[in-house]
Amino acid sequence: MRYYRVATHGDPRIIVQTSDTAYDLTSVKGNLTSFLDLTRAANITDNDIDDVADQLVAKADEVDLSTFDSDVTSPVAPSEIWAAGVTYEISEEAREAESAMPDMYREVYHSERPEIFFKATPSRTVGPGETVGIREDSDWDVPEPELGIVLYRGDIAGYTIGNDMSSRSIEGENPLYLPQAKIYDRCCSIGPCVASATGLDDPHDLEMSMTISRDGERVFEGSTTTANMAQTCEDLVSYYTRHNAVPELAVLLTGTAIVPDESFTLQAEDHVSIDLEGIGTLENDVTVV
Amino acid sequence: MRYYRVATHGDPRIIVQTSDTAYDLTSVKGNLTSFLDLTRAANITDNDIDDVADQLVAKADEVDLSTFDSDVTSPVAPSEIWAAGVTYEISEEAREAESAMPDMYREVYHSERPEIFFKATPSRTVGPGETVGIREDSDWDVPEPELGIVLYRGDIAGYTIGNDMSSRSIEGENPLYLPQAKIYDRCCSIGPCVASATGLDDPHDLEMSMTISRDGERVFEGSTTTANMAQTCEDLVSYYTRHNAVPELAVLLTGTAIVPDESFTLQAEDHVSIDLEGIGTLENDVTVV
Amino acid sequence: MRYYRVATHGDPRIIVQTSDTAYDLTSVKGNLTSFLDLTRAANITDNDIDDVADQLVAKADEVDLSTFDSDVTSPVAPSEIWAAGVTYEISEEAREAESAMPDMYREVYHSERPEIFFKATPSRTVGPGETVGIREDSDWDVPEPELGIVLYRGDIAGYTIGNDMSSRSIEGENPLYLPQAKIYDRCCSIGPCVASATGLDDPHDLEMSMTISRDGERVFEGSTTTANMAQTCEDLVSYYTRHNAVPELAVLLTGTAIVPDESFTLQAEDHVSIDLEGIGTLENDVTVV
Amino acid sequence: MRYYRVATHGDPRIIVQTSDTAYDLTSVKGNLTSFLDLTRAANITDNDIDDVADQLVAKADEVDLSTFDSDVTSPVAPSEIWAAGVTYEISEEAREAESAMPDMYREVYHSERPEIFFKATPSRTVGPGETVGIREDSDWDVPEPELGIVLYRGDIAGYTIGNDMSSRSIEGENPLYLPQAKIYDRCCSIGPCVASATGLDDPHDLEMSMTISRDGERVFEGSTTTANMAQTCEDLVSYYTRHNAVPELAVLLTGTAIVPDESFTLQAEDHVSIDLEGIGTLENDVTVV
Repeated sequence: MRYYRVATHGDPRIIVQTSDTAYDLTSVKGNLTSFLDLTRAANITDNDIDDVADQLVAKADEVDLSTFDSDVTSPVAPSEIWAAGVTYEISEEAREAESAMPDMYREVYHSERPEIFFKATPSRTVGPGETVGIREDSDWDVPEPELGIVLYRGDIAGYTIGNDMSSRSIEGENPLYLPQAKIYDRCCSIGPCVASATGLDDPHDLEMSMTISRDGERVFEGSTTTANMAQTCEDLVSYYTRHNAVPELAVLLTGTAIVPDESFTLQAEDHVSIDLEGIGTLENDVTVV
Repeated sequence: MRYYRVATHGDPRIIVQTSDTAYDLTSVKGNLTSFLDLTRAANITDNDIDDVADQLVAKADEVDLSTFDSDVTSPVAPSEIWAAGVTYEISEEAREAESAMPDMYREVYHSERPEIFFKATPSRTVGPGETVGIREDSDWDVPEPELGIVLYRGDIAGYTIGNDMSSRSIEGENPLYLPQAKIYDRCCSIGPCVASATGLDDPHDLEMSMTISRDGERVFEGSTTTANMAQTCEDLVSYYTRHNAVPELAVLLTGTAIVPDESFTLQAEDHVSIDLEGIGTLENDVTVV
Repeated sequence: MRYYRVATHGDPRIIVQTSDTAYDLTSVKGNLTSFLDLTRAANITDNDIDDVADQLVAKADEVDLSTFDSDVTSPVAPSEIWAAGVTYEISEEAREAESAMPDMYREVYHSERPEIFFKATPSRTVGPGETVGIREDSDWDVPEPELGIVLYRGDIAGYTIGNDMSSRSIEGENPLYLPQAKIYDRCCSIGPCVASATGLDDPHDLEMSMTISRDGERVFEGSTTTANMAQTCEDLVSYYTRHNAVPELAVLLTGTAIVPDESFTLQAEDHVSIDLEGIGTLENDVTVV
Repeated sequence: MRYYRVATHGDPRIIVQTSDTAYDLTSVKGNLTSFLDLTRAANITDNDIDDVADQLVAKADEVDLSTFDSDVTSPVAPSEIWAAGVTYEISEEAREAESAMPDMYREVYHSERPEIFFKATPSRTVGPGETVGIREDSDWDVPEPELGIVLYRGDIAGYTIGNDMSSRSIEGENPLYLPQAKIYDRCCSIGPCVASATGLDDPHDLEMSMTISRDGERVFEGSTTTANMAQTCEDLVSYYTRHNAVPELAVLLTGTAIVPDESFTLQAEDHVSIDLEGIGTLENDVTVV
């Protein structure tokens, strides 16, 4: 099942979408207003998240998700977001190409230890419909559409979509600049919902596509499948969590396979739309920060 | 002046040390229990931090700092800690030596844009007397003693000492592993106090030394001066804050110039002691995480 | 000076109104978003609240308060609100009249120790423009317009207007029911601003009036002056704070002298408007809870 | 089952005691550190609290409760504590006797609507082993041992012991002084555990006793049974929650039936011990506030 969070006039609610209908779980339990609330309760009672939701659906108000529109917020508020890099062959190639030091990308791609990096704090993360940022001191910027793993106390609780905004010019100049290319104001977007781990058939076999529009015209279009990932979600999580102080709720992005051509760079007011099978569509406009 | 935070039985207090005496500022104002409280009040009233403290000292209880001992905690609880790398020539050489890709260190050292990276969250940061961590999957680990800049809303409010614990084996394997070499459980220590910006003569001319003891014997000893820094604090801060979502309170470490010989690696129960002129001594034991 | 808090799209700001102009203090200091922030800073630096504000006004954006309208919120969010009773002769008479045990009101009125009672928690308190409640199980309900004292750590920091909503039928039945007559859902309103203690000439000489409208018609009108209070603000504060665990921010209402005739009771959708000289007008509609 | 909260070195844990053994539930679920955590999870999953605990007991570390001793804290941290009065005939008689206006106690005792009053905020509430307060301006003070109802979102989740400290001299002077006689620094104690509602046979049939010791000698001893209560817990809860803004977690004390002789008043350093069948013993020393 898919879990949305909506907030109309500052009143947060959790909506669950089953195959054909959406239900307001907060209408049954006023103390249940987030995916985190649900996950905590499921964890403490050793239940599956979907089973807990299922039990509430019978008593819940049916709602029409389309009526919430701009009130849909980030489905989760992770204390930190990490991301993986070079997990798809095409990404390895792209970063080789932009870099004066291509070897390191090739080597990581073929290594057991993945590239895992700190991506964003809550203050730098936006939700569906909010603007994502491109740095004013960067002249080559791209969105990176990614499958995001939602982790509860280090375990996989669900999946979402992440946009790992990146400055290719800053990263390309020197790999030691990677944090500056990746961690900045409005550098990350997640949403629009969390698909529960048990509800998603196979996170390693999802169609993903991205389109970028400018002044109403499509300026980029690309697609891939998570089947092309060189690593499993479990392996990436394993490297993130080892020897680490993992918060109660975290998101780990799994790397990208949709890389615009080298001639492409984002501009202010571009519209980025990322589709991921089984999860939905994450849309954000671009702004300069 | 130098500001300490002590917490005896969970009762936090701020102690200010003038040239020869220490005063308990919380004894004058019960609502003033941290350097952040003081800085906020100074900022809103457009006062210098030391001037606000000075006015309170006349009414404050005199205390003997040495009696607090293990009750001295982190002087500040920054929302995030960033760090700079390759800001001293010796550090550039050391990282070149450990790396299969030495060029990038040399280039950063000679570039205008410094290497700035996300170092630690509050959950990964310890204070004076607490244990710092070495990763169990790393076999070459070092402390990095550094001058730390305490930033209030992006402006320099004071200075502290930081220990930027690092896995040289993981970083050396591939620069893309840097976040894993740097951000992990108990990876950072700060303390023991904050020296106010106005109270410190010149942050670019401070003697710094580090000793590491094992089973009561000194196994490493080194010293330098911040005069050897290739960048100014102002420049580093400028790169950290640009296009970034800077929290109310942050710490930026400025890089290291004391690098143990390549044959040296930390072990569990080692004792690390870092002296920085004008600030004091930051001491931590080592544990495996 | 008078301090308002406005919150447009969840972005709280503090506005100060001098004799003829209003200024947005948050435009000067982004970390200053409430009267509490200002008061803390003034307290720690031993400054007067108005002096701190005055210094910021020179750099602040001028604003037109009337444009905020429904975005004006409670000027303070006190951890608790207490109230005094029988502090005006007319109130003593009214409560005698409603009660089967009139002696106790007369005796309190002539005693040194005032009647002081716990009035409201934050969850039961509303701000300007929000609805105040009348209990569904009560059939005789009145607003009580009162001068409210804003206390910072037990000291008088300013003044506001309070509406101490009361069920006269429940209180009249038995004085032991007073908490039920006084403490319930939406039982208290405060606002629209805080007048600083130094900015208000004399809290014991303020004209106060209240009008109640129903379906567009005035159904009650009354006025008095705080000069009729039998107790001083200082005495009431003294009794509230003695032997008590006083929070950082509290409000103490000082009792009422405007009591509608015994034939009057509030109804849903009534509009209550309270004017207090030197502070402003607090307006609330009535709802049944 | 009975739920304790212990906090050794600031590390809170929830311990459940079954008939013969105690288990550390936090050892199974690190995110489960309070009765509130457990109750939330049970509520959201529509489970009984004891059933959720039971499922965890199998995997939990067995512990010896007696080793925690002074680390036992308040089992719950309710946002507010209310109390009922005159719910036992003896209490009605005692308050009549102390009062110049005895009728109102008699009338409440025989009325359907009980006396319910606001008793304490978290800042005025202490736990087992902490000192309870007597006001310095009072010369006749008593503890009031009471069955406490633990409410989760207005529903009965369990029971605890409460000590509703009271100044009989202030209350006796005038019933309008009741809040001052009841709500002050350290005026309330609750603990030592919460007995779940399903685990307690009948809250209306529990033996209760209190002893007060002074300088090692017993100066008061009394006992009763909750069977003497004139109201049911359900009725008291019903009156507390109607038309009220009830917090997620609250405690409602149910009144006392153990009243020391009129010649008795508490003194500083007295030791109060309250036994309640099925729950345990709540012990506190007395201090002057």
